[in-house]
Amino acid sequence: MDFTPLFHNFAKHITLTKTEEKYITSLLDFKIIKAKEFLVQQGEISKQSAFVLNGCLRGYTIDSEGTEHVLSFAPKDWWIADMYSLLSQKPGNLNIEAMVDTEVALISKTNQDLMYEKVPKLERFFRIIIEKSLVAYQQRLNDNLSLTATERYMKFCKTYPQLINNIPQKQIAAYIGVTPEFLSKLRAKQVKAK
Amino acid sequence: MDFTPLFHNFAKHITLTKTEEKYITSLLDFKIIKAKEFLVQQGEISKQSAFVLNGCLRGYTIDSEGTEHVLSFAPKDWWIADMYSLLSQKPGNLNIEAMVDTEVALISKTNQDLMYEKVPKLERFFRIIIEKSLVAYQQRLNDNLSLTATERYMKFCKTYPQLINNIPQKQIAAYIGVTPEFLSKLRAKQVKAK
Repeated sequence: MDFTPLFHNFAKHITLTKTEEKYITSLLDFKIIKAKEFLVQQGEISKQSAFVLNGCLRGYTIDSEGTEHVLSFAPKDWWIADMYSLLSQKPGNLNIEAMVDTEVALISKTNQDLMYEKVPKLERFFRIIIEKSLVAYQQRLNDNLSLTATERYMKFCKTYPQLINNIPQKQIAAYIGVTPEFLSKLRAKQVKAK
Repeated sequence: MDFTPLFHNFAKHITLTKTEEKYITSLLDFKIIKAKEFLVQQGEISKQSAFVLNGCLRGYTIDSEGTEHVLSFAPKDWWIADMYSLLSQKPGNLNIEAMVDTEVALISKTNQDLMYEKVPKLERFFRIIIEKSLVAYQQRLNDNLSLTATERYMKFCKTYPQLINNIPQKQIAAYIGVTPEFLSKLRAKQVKAK
């Protein structure tokens, strides 16, 4: 297991000493989540946050009609967690599933609290990445309220350029909130327009 | 001006010394925003976060059809900012407007960065409240994708109990994403059902 990508991620916002890196490493778990397996499923209480070292996870809910809604994808170098369940320690409604075999660094809630105590500059790191995540959700919410499906698809392409041609169309459709058939027509139109 | 409610808010998650409180106070601005006036308007670059001491603000966008979409309300003791614009220092798309005469404590981005340097435990405070805000947006996004208008209205009532009978119906409609006429029918049905 190699946590280097995680420490590169930390280095974007804070500087850790070797001793701190060693301490943090001692609190991490490494896991391979096989394609179609879950990090967490709805109804469970989330115990950990995941950082994707390789592969891709997706977080989605299933509504009362059985329709899947993708809230976020987490390709390499992204963080993902059911924040509601993790913070409240109540059962969540998010399913976090591997789209391909995926390697993750896991931090349990207990260890994350320990890290904050022992390496307070991590407060700064997580404050900053959670701010960025908040901005993304605010924009996504606004996009869903204000934009057309075509505009939402363009935004998806901007947010996740590495996923456009690498994940099933129906997953993109479940993210932008249209049927796979509608997305297929929309993409055909765009190819024509080029 | 009395910043006591703000320090009560800080005290929920961190303990500040009197010296730290004095220092923070020196970096705050107090402002009264008259009803229908703006803290920030779309197209502007946000310079500050606001904590509501009294009154109520609302944050909304206007789409290309001219329709308003309310992203959040900020009654007493809530924080509000156009996080995208504040963090990127690019023009934002949020309008933050006072619904009634509203007293706010303002922290400029520059002073907030100063505060983080001088009183690092504020990193912890803002990490925690931004996490809570992130959970709220994740749930709101999921609600908009998954729930019926009636369910979204019930959620609004739970999130903002103090606003149900105190703000214009059309504002609630612009938050849950229905027309004011639809909301009115929905409320009439609920009264009947009681």
